Amino acid sequence: MLNKFNFAKQIVLNVASYIREHLNDQLEIETKSSPTDLVTQMDKEVQDNLVTWILEAYPADHILAEENGLRHSISDGNVWVIDPIDGTNNFVAQKSDFAVVLAYFENGIGQFGVIYDVIGDKLYHGGGQFDVYCNEQKLPSYQDRPLNQFLMASNAGIFERNDWGIADLAKETLGVRVYGSAVISFSKVLSGQLLTYISYICPWDYAAASIMGDKLGYTTVTFDGKQPDFESHQGIMMIPMMKLDEIKKYIYRKRED
Amino acid sequence: MLNKFNFAKQIVLNVASYIREHLNDQLEIETKSSPTDLVTQMDKEVQDNLVTWILEAYPADHILAEENGLRHSISDGNVWVIDPIDGTNNFVAQKSDFAVVLAYFENGIGQFGVIYDVIGDKLYHGGGQFDVYCNEQKLPSYQDRPLNQFLMASNAGIFERNDWGIADLAKETLGVRVYGSAVISFSKVLSGQLLTYISYICPWDYAAASIMGDKLGYTTVTFDGKQPDFESHQGIMMIPMMKLDEIKKYIYRKRED
Repeated sequence: MLNKFNFAKQIVLNVASYIREHLNDQLEIETKSSPTDLVTQMDKEVQDNLVTWILEAYPADHILAEENGLRHSISDGNVWVIDPIDGTNNFVAQKSDFAVVLAYFENGIGQFGVIYDVIGDKLYHGGGQFDVYCNEQKLPSYQDRPLNQFLMASNAGIFERNDWGIADLAKETLGVRVYGSAVISFSKVLSGQLLTYISYICPWDYAAASIMGDKLGYTTVTFDGKQPDFESHQGIMMIPMMKLDEIKKYIYRKRED
Repeated sequence: MLNKFNFAKQIVLNVASYIREHLNDQLEIETKSSPTDLVTQMDKEVQDNLVTWILEAYPADHILAEENGLRHSISDGNVWVIDPIDGTNNFVAQKSDFAVVLAYFENGIGQFGVIYDVIGDKLYHGGGQFDVYCNEQKLPSYQDRPLNQFLMASNAGIFERNDWGIADLAKETLGVRVYGSAVISFSKVLSGQLLTYISYICPWDYAAASIMGDKLGYTTVTFDGKQPDFESHQGIMMIPMMKLDEIKKYIYRKRED
């Protein structure tokens, strides 16, 4: 497993170098489900490279990835979960605050995750049998403090609508942040800078963070407290295990519309 | 003026070194106007140091600063505007995404601004007779593109309430970000990463950015299109001059409650 883990880190760093070298190239931008759901040729190139390298090295393995409809179930065999660029809108409009993400599962069990904040140059890696690090620094497990000493993150729409009482929870905290990348937000939870990140997201958005979070005292659940399905677009939150009961008191209301 | 400008940059870097050295010290945290309006002994120490050094070097000058009620009008003589730590809640809860800020006015005319993103190690400086830089890189003037190719920033409450139609404006853009520091947000406008930052803020939050923004094709106005008063807590937006008429179409509704 160590070889696979090191391989995963290396290919993430390789594509990140490529992204940095081509950061000021003209982007071909297309929309997917909505005018603000963007994909660029860079997302596709990065994913294609990662898929090629993985299947060259491990021909029997499978892929679940954001682009091009690669949708192998994480429960079946050795499965790599890929988000080539998480935070594509940040990538397009800011050239920062985006990440390359890999997670690796064997028959549904998370073995490790790798998250690289490309411009911030922060590589989060670990989970499963591996301790969790940010670059060379081992991350400590969750350290408890009251809700009102924490910031939390989500997206602006959730607060506007107070979906599931999330805005009510936010009022018990020090405040709300919106970074525009699920994975950048999760990395701030893993490093103790946020209480939680809560949003409607897909498996490639939460797979790597959830594997690392499990190792550090967090749990990743749906808004009604179930395990994520690693298939559909769901309401997901990564929260400290110790705070689960307290947070459930706020996250309870299903929006009616 | 060049001497004063270099002096300003130097004292900002000096206090930033002090902050970094003491980043993991125990903080004494007090609340001001609300449970989420925090101040620490570090804010006060940093401000005291800046005030002391400024008045030693320039005994005839005056101070407008966030802490301790130092409230000299920017219209009267040589006035330094200080925000010792902008983004105090980020400083307390995240140890990142906060800034030290100085602006300098002579009889109401902005001469230069200095913004230092302490952990990001980005020094924004310039305005008045000086070009605007981020570290050693000269920042280009605003480059126009359509609203739907820009992100914008504000705070979560403004979107929740759609104050002044700001959430309506946001729906025309690529999305909304909330960073928890006015000055960090303004610095992303200055560097072309955001269309605008819109919030209810105080003079020390917008003074430095507005001086630099004037140099790069931005204007800093209240929600009803007037000049900020540099005295009270006001609704403020820094927007590209070229987009003023377009943005005014959205920012028009006074909230009734």
